Amino acid sequence: MVIVMRAGTKREDIDKIRNKMESLGCKVHEVQGESYHILGLVGDTSNIDRELINSNKNVEKVVNIQEPYKKANKMFKPEDTIVEVAGRKIGGGHIGIIAGPCSVEGIEQIVGIARDVKAAGAGFLRGGAFKPRTSPYSFQGLREEGLKLLEEAKKETGLPIVTEIMSASHLEIFEEHVDVMQIGARNMQNFELLKEVGRSKKPVLLKRGMSSSIEELIMSAEYIMAGGNENVILCERGIRTFENFTRNTLDLSAIPAIKKLSHLPVVVDPSHAAGLSWMVEPLSKAAIAVGADGLMIEVHNDPANAKCDGQQSLTPDQFKDLMKSIKQIAQIENKTISI
Amino acid sequence: MVIVMRAGTKREDIDKIRNKMESLGCKVHEVQGESYHILGLVGDTSNIDRELINSNKNVEKVVNIQEPYKKANKMFKPEDTIVEVAGRKIGGGHIGIIAGPCSVEGIEQIVGIARDVKAAGAGFLRGGAFKPRTSPYSFQGLREEGLKLLEEAKKETGLPIVTEIMSASHLEIFEEHVDVMQIGARNMQNFELLKEVGRSKKPVLLKRGMSSSIEELIMSAEYIMAGGNENVILCERGIRTFENFTRNTLDLSAIPAIKKLSHLPVVVDPSHAAGLSWMVEPLSKAAIAVGADGLMIEVHNDPANAKCDGQQSLTPDQFKDLMKSIKQIAQIENKTISI
Amino acid sequence: MVIVMRAGTKREDIDKIRNKMESLGCKVHEVQGESYHILGLVGDTSNIDRELINSNKNVEKVVNIQEPYKKANKMFKPEDTIVEVAGRKIGGGHIGIIAGPCSVEGIEQIVGIARDVKAAGAGFLRGGAFKPRTSPYSFQGLREEGLKLLEEAKKETGLPIVTEIMSASHLEIFEEHVDVMQIGARNMQNFELLKEVGRSKKPVLLKRGMSSSIEELIMSAEYIMAGGNENVILCERGIRTFENFTRNTLDLSAIPAIKKLSHLPVVVDPSHAAGLSWMVEPLSKAAIAVGADGLMIEVHNDPANAKCDGQQSLTPDQFKDLMKSIKQIAQIENKTISI
Amino acid sequence: MVIVMRAGTKREDIDKIRNKMESLGCKVHEVQGESYHILGLVGDTSNIDRELINSNKNVEKVVNIQEPYKKANKMFKPEDTIVEVAGRKIGGGHIGIIAGPCSVEGIEQIVGIARDVKAAGAGFLRGGAFKPRTSPYSFQGLREEGLKLLEEAKKETGLPIVTEIMSASHLEIFEEHVDVMQIGARNMQNFELLKEVGRSKKPVLLKRGMSSSIEELIMSAEYIMAGGNENVILCERGIRTFENFTRNTLDLSAIPAIKKLSHLPVVVDPSHAAGLSWMVEPLSKAAIAVGADGLMIEVHNDPANAKCDGQQSLTPDQFKDLMKSIKQIAQIENKTISI
Repeated sequence: MVIVMRAGTKREDIDKIRNKMESLGCKVHEVQGESYHILGLVGDTSNIDRELINSNKNVEKVVNIQEPYKKANKMFKPEDTIVEVAGRKIGGGHIGIIAGPCSVEGIEQIVGIARDVKAAGAGFLRGGAFKPRTSPYSFQGLREEGLKLLEEAKKETGLPIVTEIMSASHLEIFEEHVDVMQIGARNMQNFELLKEVGRSKKPVLLKRGMSSSIEELIMSAEYIMAGGNENVILCERGIRTFENFTRNTLDLSAIPAIKKLSHLPVVVDPSHAAGLSWMVEPLSKAAIAVGADGLMIEVHNDPANAKCDGQQSLTPDQFKDLMKSIKQIAQIENKTISI
Repeated sequence: MVIVMRAGTKREDIDKIRNKMESLGCKVHEVQGESYHILGLVGDTSNIDRELINSNKNVEKVVNIQEPYKKANKMFKPEDTIVEVAGRKIGGGHIGIIAGPCSVEGIEQIVGIARDVKAAGAGFLRGGAFKPRTSPYSFQGLREEGLKLLEEAKKETGLPIVTEIMSASHLEIFEEHVDVMQIGARNMQNFELLKEVGRSKKPVLLKRGMSSSIEELIMSAEYIMAGGNENVILCERGIRTFENFTRNTLDLSAIPAIKKLSHLPVVVDPSHAAGLSWMVEPLSKAAIAVGADGLMIEVHNDPANAKCDGQQSLTPDQFKDLMKSIKQIAQIENKTISI
Repeated sequence: MVIVMRAGTKREDIDKIRNKMESLGCKVHEVQGESYHILGLVGDTSNIDRELINSNKNVEKVVNIQEPYKKANKMFKPEDTIVEVAGRKIGGGHIGIIAGPCSVEGIEQIVGIARDVKAAGAGFLRGGAFKPRTSPYSFQGLREEGLKLLEEAKKETGLPIVTEIMSASHLEIFEEHVDVMQIGARNMQNFELLKEVGRSKKPVLLKRGMSSSIEELIMSAEYIMAGGNENVILCERGIRTFENFTRNTLDLSAIPAIKKLSHLPVVVDPSHAAGLSWMVEPLSKAAIAVGADGLMIEVHNDPANAKCDGQQSLTPDQFKDLMKSIKQIAQIENKTISI
Repeated sequence: MVIVMRAGTKREDIDKIRNKMESLGCKVHEVQGESYHILGLVGDTSNIDRELINSNKNVEKVVNIQEPYKKANKMFKPEDTIVEVAGRKIGGGHIGIIAGPCSVEGIEQIVGIARDVKAAGAGFLRGGAFKPRTSPYSFQGLREEGLKLLEEAKKETGLPIVTEIMSASHLEIFEEHVDVMQIGARNMQNFELLKEVGRSKKPVLLKRGMSSSIEELIMSAEYIMAGGNENVILCERGIRTFENFTRNTLDLSAIPAIKKLSHLPVVVDPSHAAGLSWMVEPLSKAAIAVGADGLMIEVHNDPANAKCDGQQSLTPDQFKDLMKSIKQIAQIENKTISI
């Protein structure tokens, strides 16, 4: 950490900060410029609150040198984390394909789609039971009933279940019925929820918030890991920008960035990012080519009548074609698709 | 609602959509262009799911004419909503000034600040007990203990308490101890929490999410109102943009925009928007000049040692000066400050 | 400037950079951490190319301590710059109100509007002769003919002319006919044009680019000033964000920010920012309350038939009302409106 | 085009707009709702100025159904445009790889790099002679001298030259010495420059502005095409968002979007997008996988001493490796790399 003091700060005020930092266990080196005075901190600065220093009126700027996360940091654990779910791996050369409808709508729908996506090569079943909707008047999901239908589909196909948890009060029921608990983009900084899933042992798929930085995404993973649960899969699903042609702007640069900063696996959700079914295939190929550890794809047997997000859903046939392209790219990347 | 069909759509496919819309209670008028075919819907379209239509492969575009919210809509209730808290009003010409520290840190701190801000003319006391922090390693607030200290400060000063609720599981304790429940920016689309506070009768201060549109903010208010709680105060606190000089970009255009669309009162938080204490005064004046119904201001007796956000806190003396400027602008606007 | 070297960089590689920096006239202080090695540079670093250092594979991060601009920097010239045009002042407590139509359309239109805005208290006449339009098929302005009409209006009213220059090849004709040369948002980083107007003596009104940071805006002013022309007025006109209710998001925080960083005057264009005539008045009041040195307002005698941007234009009567509000706020701010 | 009138508009005011539209050659169909009145326009609406209608006080909303561009529109020319330069093709299954240094620095540098990139499989040489730099104090390029050095490199290698034109006054010299004129991101809406290159016959590579929408990019191409020059190659190079890990956020969704809307070829510049050399390879592979017609890559023999943008430049060896990956992806996509 580097602290830049304002020009003309008195010696005694510099010493106050200096002493404070030393009392927190850091060594302080000073660099005296003409119009600035710099304090270079050496030692473990992760417990020093940057904002606290910033609020000192003599401080011009505080620059972090170390990342503010530890457990998620690649520097402290260089090898890739591999999350294993029902014998299927994600990360470290293993690609997980998570497919299924936006919402669970009924037993035939979910079992039918589960069979189709399994046949095409998916390794995981997705399907929303609890649905975050912008309008209180939109379909809110089948809730507990939806979880049971997902379990039926799992019994039929063996595909482990990935579904969104929206409230800490549902934790028990999710631990019982679900294989991977998804934290949605809107809850990425619902810290009370992060703490709760951090106490669980179930793997967590954590989606990047619409306007969250890569660092904030990793910090939210750190919340979960700090609680003891290190089975975290990150998910890039598009960020909000000025461009409106797509629902969000898929930030594929985030994949190599996360790979550089963290050992956690990261998957891509091109369906929610673009919001356009015809864009899912090219974006999926790009995601695997850029280094993602998996994909999360919406598939619906009857998109025009889906209860939500039909606009972005593939038909089972389109998904089958997609899987063919994905396999070709995965091969070039020397990766295997987990089934 | 207007539905634009793709060029070359067959008559039978147009009729399918037409019949569907008519079955939902709308009248449909057709406009036939050279390369487009337009369906104009007449009647109550608020129950029609726009996404559902969009997912039809023959549909080019769906255009909403009516706003998707009802209870918060100015069209259906033209007069301003006035929220009343412990005899103090916000909205309809009444300006509410909410001031206090980022976090409650101790009894002397909170009571001292409460006295200072009351003396300067504030009508409400703010102070965080449950704190949303980006890092799991930062100070998370005094939690229940913090609520008790706020109550002490209320006893001493009479100022009603505004503080953030982060989890539905705290609802009971908030209903007992707090006057206005704040929903923070990161929880603006925590729909489970919105539903819970919607069942309460306590006023809610709802902050705009960092990357939420004005329409989404009003839709989140609609969630609360749909549950039966119509005492909602909106709060603009800056949005995330590419500009990094300020922590967020305060969107003051949102104030007249919200006033045009909704009858709900709206306040501005210039402290969190800018993240810079020296910018709070000019932004506060601008907020009142642009038509805000109140301000939410961070004040700390010792900003350099504040446990969070000291960088953006005013000292009690600075707050006193600020109140003088605010009163002048309020007078021009023919508004009164609620005390 | 602070250079952070990557962990494990060899001594000889550190010395290479160290020697390079010393050869450029800086003193270098080293701070040795456990996993980082920091070089603190002392002296004039404004000639050191930050990107150049960044490209060294052993460099983790480069942090600028000094701003990259000199002539526009408040640190080197603390007193406000006052730009004077035909006896009217902008900056240092003097507010300039620039009003007129988006486009010059004809002699009666421009002379009529000029008279109206003068009567209401404007000090400058705006009107586009050369128009930047997104579509090649939209009205492109009356060009040279437009400049002549503006001069007629000036003869009638005495109001100096502010109008946009879009190409260096027009410089001569602008120097002859125009009082303030405006650089539009889309040309803020048209560096060839900036260099050309930098060679002129005419005042320049430089609009912030739609996605330009405050620092980049000041850097573009520095281009003009580096050429010898120090009569630069900055203009905030809204930035592009995800919010679509307004055409752009007016960034009023930029005003106190610019005032902190630079001595140059800064005005606000609420008409282009919002793109909505009914929002011009509240935003104008907020702009003066936040500290702006002036306003740029679109006024049209017949907005519904304006050749461009009628949607955001005030009628002369609305402008008269606006001026009354503005004067009240200016009085509170102890500023005078230049006429 | 659909015009939504405000509730309660008088019949005579509706008729005024109706008549105006009919006088412009459109047929008008009316749809009468309870609280809205809709006019559906049929016929060629491309000459109707949307803003003009919007400014009518009785108009609630104007919705474009047709895209505002013609010559660039895929609807009117469904087959891919193939731009041919010195026998090399870009578009329609042909991938163009444009490689070279950010700036031309000297004869040995540019000829050396040209040989290296040719040997690795590039088809075009890039190199800046006129450089747009944020700071007036940064290296501005060798200008005319740079063009001559590029020509020398072309003589040695046969690679056609792609380089940026910053001013219409340089058109003649560019037409003489250069093969493809590049319009940089900062000049994407420098309409005077667009008009000038539109009069030329030389192919133009048009970069997307940092905050330009996909539609605006195509509209700028339309400017060039409207002048008679239909040899336009579009280039995605990253947009400005809140995320700062990368210099810009590469918007790869823009590639399938542009392919859907326009017949023009589109290439990707991963070097400027990310600003990080280690990210160029994964982003390049993703770009080809998503459907781009080419790449623009910075290569420098000595990145640490490059006069600009060394941080994002590949060494010739890294470029050779990159070309191997690219060829594999191109093969899957059934495309050929133009050499």
